[in-house]
Amino acid sequence: MSEAILALNAGSSSLKFALHAADTLAPLCRGGVSGLGGAATLAAAGPVALAGGVPPAPRCDHAGAVAWLLDAVRRTPGLRLRAAGHRVVHGGRDFSAPVRIDDQALAALDRLVPLAPAHQPHNLAAIRAVAAAWPGLAQVACFDTAFHRTQPRLAQLFPIPRALSDEGLLRYGFHGLSYEHVAAALPEVAGAEADGRVIVAHLGHGASLCALHGRRSIASTMGFTALDGLMMGTRSGAVDPGLVLHLIRERGLAPDAVADLLNDRSGLLGVSGLSDDVRVLQDSPDPRAAEALDLFAYRAVREAGSLVAALGGLDALVFTAGIGERAPRVRAAICAGLSAFGTDLDPARNEAGETRISRDGARAAVYVVPANEELPIARAAARLLSGDRPARG
Amino acid sequence: MSEAILALNAGSSSLKFALHAADTLAPLCRGGVSGLGGAATLAAAGPVALAGGVPPAPRCDHAGAVAWLLDAVRRTPGLRLRAAGHRVVHGGRDFSAPVRIDDQALAALDRLVPLAPAHQPHNLAAIRAVAAAWPGLAQVACFDTAFHRTQPRLAQLFPIPRALSDEGLLRYGFHGLSYEHVAAALPEVAGAEADGRVIVAHLGHGASLCALHGRRSIASTMGFTALDGLMMGTRSGAVDPGLVLHLIRERGLAPDAVADLLNDRSGLLGVSGLSDDVRVLQDSPDPRAAEALDLFAYRAVREAGSLVAALGGLDALVFTAGIGERAPRVRAAICAGLSAFGTDLDPARNEAGETRISRDGARAAVYVVPANEELPIARAAARLLSGDRPARG
Repeated sequence: MSEAILALNAGSSSLKFALHAADTLAPLCRGGVSGLGGAATLAAAGPVALAGGVPPAPRCDHAGAVAWLLDAVRRTPGLRLRAAGHRVVHGGRDFSAPVRIDDQALAALDRLVPLAPAHQPHNLAAIRAVAAAWPGLAQVACFDTAFHRTQPRLAQLFPIPRALSDEGLLRYGFHGLSYEHVAAALPEVAGAEADGRVIVAHLGHGASLCALHGRRSIASTMGFTALDGLMMGTRSGAVDPGLVLHLIRERGLAPDAVADLLNDRSGLLGVSGLSDDVRVLQDSPDPRAAEALDLFAYRAVREAGSLVAALGGLDALVFTAGIGERAPRVRAAICAGLSAFGTDLDPARNEAGETRISRDGARAAVYVVPANEELPIARAAARLLSGDRPARG
Repeated sequence: MSEAILALNAGSSSLKFALHAADTLAPLCRGGVSGLGGAATLAAAGPVALAGGVPPAPRCDHAGAVAWLLDAVRRTPGLRLRAAGHRVVHGGRDFSAPVRIDDQALAALDRLVPLAPAHQPHNLAAIRAVAAAWPGLAQVACFDTAFHRTQPRLAQLFPIPRALSDEGLLRYGFHGLSYEHVAAALPEVAGAEADGRVIVAHLGHGASLCALHGRRSIASTMGFTALDGLMMGTRSGAVDPGLVLHLIRERGLAPDAVADLLNDRSGLLGVSGLSDDVRVLQDSPDPRAAEALDLFAYRAVREAGSLVAALGGLDALVFTAGIGERAPRVRAAICAGLSAFGTDLDPARNEAGETRISRDGARAAVYVVPANEELPIARAAARLLSGDRPARG
């Protein structure tokens, strides 16, 4: 009988999951339900085959998907579920580490919904769905913001009236579980360099950079929300706050329309007018596609320079997540822009997607580390769980 | 009889002016009317003493101040006014150089008011006041945005839908007359380094950075408006666009209230809760004052790092404008933060406010160049004027 921990990552239209062994954290099975709210589909793979069963209903919601998944886990021979861990986007100021879910914690997380209205409700819905489908199962929340709470105060402050900062209008930073995974994996990849001045580029549909020193976050590009910083698939990233106000005050756009514009119709999609998908843009002969990719790299270079200043230099650059792992041309463009800081790429290693893609002797080594946001969740759940049990002699 | 050019810089509550010789550009007299709209006061100094006269009325407006000034110029013995040149904040996409004012140009500048509603109307009011008080006098408009039109397109683009960029929602950059002055003065100060990779820090009540290569702007921190980029006296500088939307959508603030918050109640004033004046904050024992100054320097370091990436390295850093010229502790804090880029300050030279304040042999030299936004205006007016006259044999 293998004791397992289920890591859940509930997005607006998908539910990703991974099962890990509770003791060794070995991966057992990973997969996801996509198309929630519409024609949902599910996929899973790994050494442990989940028990087959009734697929989710055609208009399956988060609760339905969670119930299906837990039912399959329950019926899988040789598997005993010990806990569920959840990715929760926002932990606010108070949650700087994973937390065991109880009524009090859940109420506190409900109060953070206004800080991430597009994401937090899905995360909390998944927690409630697990509680309904498997009463009594231990649950743990892991936060995308928590990893950044080690940042110096100056990196977290906006230059706004102090009272607003005191109320929690701070630079929280996101993608923390991804950065936590890279920080944990880096010593094996980079040796002693891992504890130096490192920039991690999480380039997925959402994208941000994190400056690590001693494998702790000292600055990041995302701010109060996940809209700040880098140009992304459909998000603008940082734009002049005066531009936001201009669109509302001078052009008469509704604030919701501006939010839609900057979150869903900007970035690679908005600049190219074609697609938010790097692969599609790279294959397009349209000069607008090339300009969108050029701007993506340019913005990453500019924001990385800001983090080099925060770090006082650069020892290593790490790419992770979809674009970071699978778009060598994007990596090459960013490293070329940062060459003044020593990111001297080896073209063959970059094309081959090796772990270390910089030339031997480059002043700043460049790595590719596959993203895994579920592993830190499973690790945190295992750690909190073991704290619950008496130590075994 | 000395031919003179009047350079005018009309702000919301002040009118600054300088008289320069039309041929040599030698300074003749400079001064200003402050407290416009209230109890206005005037001051002037220089080799040429303006004729005394009736001081402006107690509630003097721009037109009244301009009429007073022109009357004094007219009555000053030995002075013959050839032209007036104006600082105009916004030249949009079309004005990439100074322009002779005629009805057509003035109409085009009127159409740019929505891009700078807080500043452009004052500039245009001064132009109209001169036309009313001195019909037929040649007038020239010089733009704060024009100097940045040499930037590569990627530096001017926001990652927003292409149609909006095409309509002119671009990173214009500001303080261009100040940067133009530094770029013109730099060869004498820095020799061949002037044409290298240079960051100019214009740190006044408004503040921005400009990256120069070959003494041309390749990037700057201000964006579509003068709110973007560095933390300033009362302006926030760059903040997460999601924060702006949060204040409106989740907190229910009116867009005008958010504009007021970010433009007039943030920055040094907002973070300290005490003052927007660096001197006051430096003299205060309040830890909030120290934090505001620390954040001011931190934000400048981060934004400078972004420009170092755009430049591909750093040969020189130049401080200018009020804080840049007169706050050695601020300069020291910024240079300490940028020390990884070689800005090795000589403490004695910095305290003394010498022109070169870096140590001998520093990888990046650091200079202080006094601001003079009126001189480029006079130079431009003289150049356009000489184009009007037949060449003398």
